[in-house]
Amino acid sequence: MVLLVHHPVSAFSRKIRIILNEKKMLFVLREEEPWALSDEAYQLNPSGSLPIFVYDGKAISGNYAISEFLEEASPDVPLLPKNIEKRAETRRLCEWFDEKFYHEVFLQIVTEKVFKRFSNGGAPNAKVINIGLNNLAFHLEYVDWLAERRNYLAGDEFSLADIAAAAQISVIDYLGDVPWDGYKNAKIWYSKIKSRPSFKDILKDNIRGILPAKHYANLDF
Amino acid sequence: MVLLVHHPVSAFSRKIRIILNEKKMLFVLREEEPWALSDEAYQLNPSGSLPIFVYDGKAISGNYAISEFLEEASPDVPLLPKNIEKRAETRRLCEWFDEKFYHEVFLQIVTEKVFKRFSNGGAPNAKVINIGLNNLAFHLEYVDWLAERRNYLAGDEFSLADIAAAAQISVIDYLGDVPWDGYKNAKIWYSKIKSRPSFKDILKDNIRGILPAKHYANLDF
Repeated sequence: MVLLVHHPVSAFSRKIRIILNEKKMLFVLREEEPWALSDEAYQLNPSGSLPIFVYDGKAISGNYAISEFLEEASPDVPLLPKNIEKRAETRRLCEWFDEKFYHEVFLQIVTEKVFKRFSNGGAPNAKVINIGLNNLAFHLEYVDWLAERRNYLAGDEFSLADIAAAAQISVIDYLGDVPWDGYKNAKIWYSKIKSRPSFKDILKDNIRGILPAKHYANLDF
Repeated sequence: MVLLVHHPVSAFSRKIRIILNEKKMLFVLREEEPWALSDEAYQLNPSGSLPIFVYDGKAISGNYAISEFLEEASPDVPLLPKNIEKRAETRRLCEWFDEKFYHEVFLQIVTEKVFKRFSNGGAPNAKVINIGLNNLAFHLEYVDWLAERRNYLAGDEFSLADIAAAAQISVIDYLGDVPWDGYKNAKIWYSKIKSRPSFKDILKDNIRGILPAKHYANLDF
């Protein structure tokens, strides 16, 4: 049995769920709250991050290790191009979203609006949220720029880069903080990703105590 | 010609330099200050991070994209194991150092002690440095624990995981902030890495205006 320890607010959990869906691998989800991880989860992953991928009693943790492992273990549905230069471009964009977007946008907004609420961290700091929203505008501009020039973010084909980007953006969109109207090409790109069967689960996500933005699950938004 | 745009204080630049040395690839270094990146560097890498790998007039940026590219382009000296589960364990540890150590230790210490100095960011904040040093103790304990059980951090063979860890730790060691004496196995591991020909350049590194700790380049420290 393949088990994914995850949480709907965790962008990296979403990334791995979409990969598993794209690769048509069957898996069971177990929810853990990132702000109150169980001892068992810590034993599976001493770094204390989500998601954790468990199969045959073995655990793989870390978004980078899991996504590369799945690409190697299940190559029939490739999510990286064959050409090594195109692979590099795809991975460059994965890192852009996994690292840059995550630290400049995701953590600013989601720590304040969600994590603090459940971990008794106090009231959300509007100043920090605003920094995140300002950075978001810059990132949306970049997505818009890429989407105007390319079919998908890294090139002609759908790839890990689209998954990495949509995983992060979808959590911010759940909170209603993505100003889609200013970014026509980014919006068209995101509607293509939203329409994929692999994304269906993500659109049904429910973060306890926080309703999704009205348009969150709409394919036409 | 292969060019690496780098800086001696950039852990990710060090990581790629060690990989290139291990793979015996010839390359030219060009130094750029991370706190005052040139327009040309931004054109090569819009994310504004170092290092940037340039070959045949093409640029690859991002530590993840460059290291996986080099592994694919130059497989004769493999830095990832063959077995996909061992590859996953190696990448898990790369992410541990590239992401967790970098944000919990490196940025706290190096931003305050080095970046602020050159970017007119004001006086170093001792409170932030102390958070970094406390986190460092936890990370050294983990390296010590791994090194007690394994020949190298990810298993029997030298791998990308050792390079990722040593790249981060070597910058902190340059600043004299690694309390080696409390971590016997970690120290033995680091002395093995220090002795590799691929690490020679790193031990000659010089960060402008900051002298390395006395023991920095000593193989017996």
